[in-house]
Amino acid sequence: MRVLLVGAGGVGTAITRIAARRPFFEAMVVADYDRGRAESAVAALGDDRRFVAERVDAGDEAAVAALLARHRCDMLLNATDPRFVMPLFRAARAAGTGYLDMAMSLSRPHPEQPYEECGVKLGDEQFALAEEWEKAGALALVGMGVEPGLSDVFARYAADELFDEIEEIGVRDGADLTVEGHDFAPSFSIWTTIEECLNPPVVYEAGRGWFTTEPFSEPEVFDFPEGIGEIECVNVEHEEVLLVPRWIDARRVTFKYGLGREFIDTLKTLHRLGLDRTAPVTVPGPDGPVAVSPRDVVAACLPDPATLGERMHGKTCAGTWVRGTRGGAPREVYLYHVVDNQWSMAEYGCQAVVWQTAVNPVVALELVAAGVWTGAGVLGPEAFPARPFLDLLTEYGSPWGMREQ
Amino acid sequence: MRVLLVGAGGVGTAITRIAARRPFFEAMVVADYDRGRAESAVAALGDDRRFVAERVDAGDEAAVAALLARHRCDMLLNATDPRFVMPLFRAARAAGTGYLDMAMSLSRPHPEQPYEECGVKLGDEQFALAEEWEKAGALALVGMGVEPGLSDVFARYAADELFDEIEEIGVRDGADLTVEGHDFAPSFSIWTTIEECLNPPVVYEAGRGWFTTEPFSEPEVFDFPEGIGEIECVNVEHEEVLLVPRWIDARRVTFKYGLGREFIDTLKTLHRLGLDRTAPVTVPGPDGPVAVSPRDVVAACLPDPATLGERMHGKTCAGTWVRGTRGGAPREVYLYHVVDNQWSMAEYGCQAVVWQTAVNPVVALELVAAGVWTGAGVLGPEAFPARPFLDLLTEYGSPWGMREQ
Repeated sequence: MRVLLVGAGGVGTAITRIAARRPFFEAMVVADYDRGRAESAVAALGDDRRFVAERVDAGDEAAVAALLARHRCDMLLNATDPRFVMPLFRAARAAGTGYLDMAMSLSRPHPEQPYEECGVKLGDEQFALAEEWEKAGALALVGMGVEPGLSDVFARYAADELFDEIEEIGVRDGADLTVEGHDFAPSFSIWTTIEECLNPPVVYEAGRGWFTTEPFSEPEVFDFPEGIGEIECVNVEHEEVLLVPRWIDARRVTFKYGLGREFIDTLKTLHRLGLDRTAPVTVPGPDGPVAVSPRDVVAACLPDPATLGERMHGKTCAGTWVRGTRGGAPREVYLYHVVDNQWSMAEYGCQAVVWQTAVNPVVALELVAAGVWTGAGVLGPEAFPARPFLDLLTEYGSPWGMREQ
Repeated sequence: MRVLLVGAGGVGTAITRIAARRPFFEAMVVADYDRGRAESAVAALGDDRRFVAERVDAGDEAAVAALLARHRCDMLLNATDPRFVMPLFRAARAAGTGYLDMAMSLSRPHPEQPYEECGVKLGDEQFALAEEWEKAGALALVGMGVEPGLSDVFARYAADELFDEIEEIGVRDGADLTVEGHDFAPSFSIWTTIEECLNPPVVYEAGRGWFTTEPFSEPEVFDFPEGIGEIECVNVEHEEVLLVPRWIDARRVTFKYGLGREFIDTLKTLHRLGLDRTAPVTVPGPDGPVAVSPRDVVAACLPDPATLGERMHGKTCAGTWVRGTRGGAPREVYLYHVVDNQWSMAEYGCQAVVWQTAVNPVVALELVAAGVWTGAGVLGPEAFPARPFLDLLTEYGSPWGMREQ
């Protein structure tokens, strides 16, 4: 397998470090808009035989397709932010290669009833092109990070091996990460978190289909494993709710994010004050009035999450809670994956949240390379057998867990 | 009496409207950095005989002193923001006139122990020049708005007529104002509120003197009269704590602001995110990076409080709670003054908070003009007999109240 990795930010760099330890691929071209970033990632690996750095604009379909052709790649791995999903997805199709991403094409709220009806859903633009991929016999594996990604694999595993009937599948994400010297330091981009948390959350119910709610709806306290403990979780728009019902029979599918009371209140306050807005406001500057986006100012006031790994402590947990029946009896399980920041920093020099996102696409690529995961079309992780994925993840040194509840 | 009013903003304009109904002065010169603002205030009165508009830079001592001389004023009434206290105070001394303000010279926190010890206190710079005023036989009446101002008059009234011994004097300020169409719309400058609430609050105790605490310390729920009801109040840095103990015997003096839980949480969130800072941060702009003060951005995202009067509903209450003994028995009273926004808008076209601040200096000027309040030096409102002030305030159509508790 020859891979073009687009994006050498936190997750992209972690992908190169994880992949460098595995023999399944022949070459990985690391491309970024900032060539220096790609070169740094490659230089740190000491494997000039398989890794090479390139510069590319992820928004330029033709340039990406040409790069795929020039390096004879058979797979594009997208590690950029979601704004670049569509150009990269189209470039891979144009070049005739496979495609893998960790987040899907963006949603747009319903113009009249944003908190009741779906508008354009996450992934809709990609699924609209599914027939093209099927006809070409090419694979686009979408939403294959940790969440979405591993969380969807857990859902498939539950459906295959643990339940006869499934009442509800609820992805539940929580962490107890803290950062030394900072009262408030999100471990991920505040810009993206605001976007994600203030978009109308989507819920799936059999018979009703997909619908939306107000932000922060259906709060619940979820008890996370391995000492993380109880955290308040709320509905957030996320790909799993759009992916899981396409392949798995469940009466209800939700995604709840363990933001915690303090973080929820912070986001609500930013919204109430209009500080979440991206449209510019005019403020005095040293040389007269200037226009700035309030959300950019919020981001500028906080430390850059990519630089916080060394001072971070704690664990992050991604997982899927499933409720249903087995042999006529009620059953409830939480399938999960925990990464301790101390371990990921020591082992890979990567912050826990970033490392956890990065390991799953590498595992998936290895299954595709080995011919264990095969298929054509636009497919989510739950379209493939789960057991080989979970076994290989454990082999990567990062086992998953299951709690009967 | 011939008065130079500096500042034709919300409070200055309200002062002209209140004063226009009273015959005690011969002339009032209304001066502002923005001549148009001064002209608008004067034009609205229809009294060209007594009122005249001028332009002046409040920071230019020599220009202010010249203006005082040119109009043969005997009193400077300062209705600008606290940054201009010292130049205006010095200009009045230089011109040999009297002086009255509603806020005192600014504080600076203690460099090492900001939340335990006082640094430069509110009014210190003014009191440092007290001897000059005394020697000249000139009066600087400082802190003579509503709070400080009327609250200090209440303290003096309690000491003179209601108590033998005073245990504690606590100014307590609360309102139930809401603004139609806005989830969050402070009825006063958010910039100043942040400054006031995040500065270390000051407390006075006999024997210990003045000291500071952490922001938002000693929360208590206070029940405000006339239907406003219970509001959570916290310690805030305010002039009364510095003024009252200079003239009145009390074991403890505090100022608590009825910010309410939501507003306190909002200010704490802004502080935790660094959005209260005035030092600039760099953010992307349409033409490259620009430097902006986060606090300016917060202010720019909120509606201008001066424009909200028409859509505002509710009442604001300023008052002084006193606990002590009378005739050997314990006594506790709350002396207060409530303004209903509907009344102040109908009667004066002024928002309640602004009108309540403006009426008190006019009452004080009338007492000085009549020779009822006389003195020399830098004196707070509690240095003068309280009863004539309270009676005249009632005569202005805005009676005060007292609750035994």
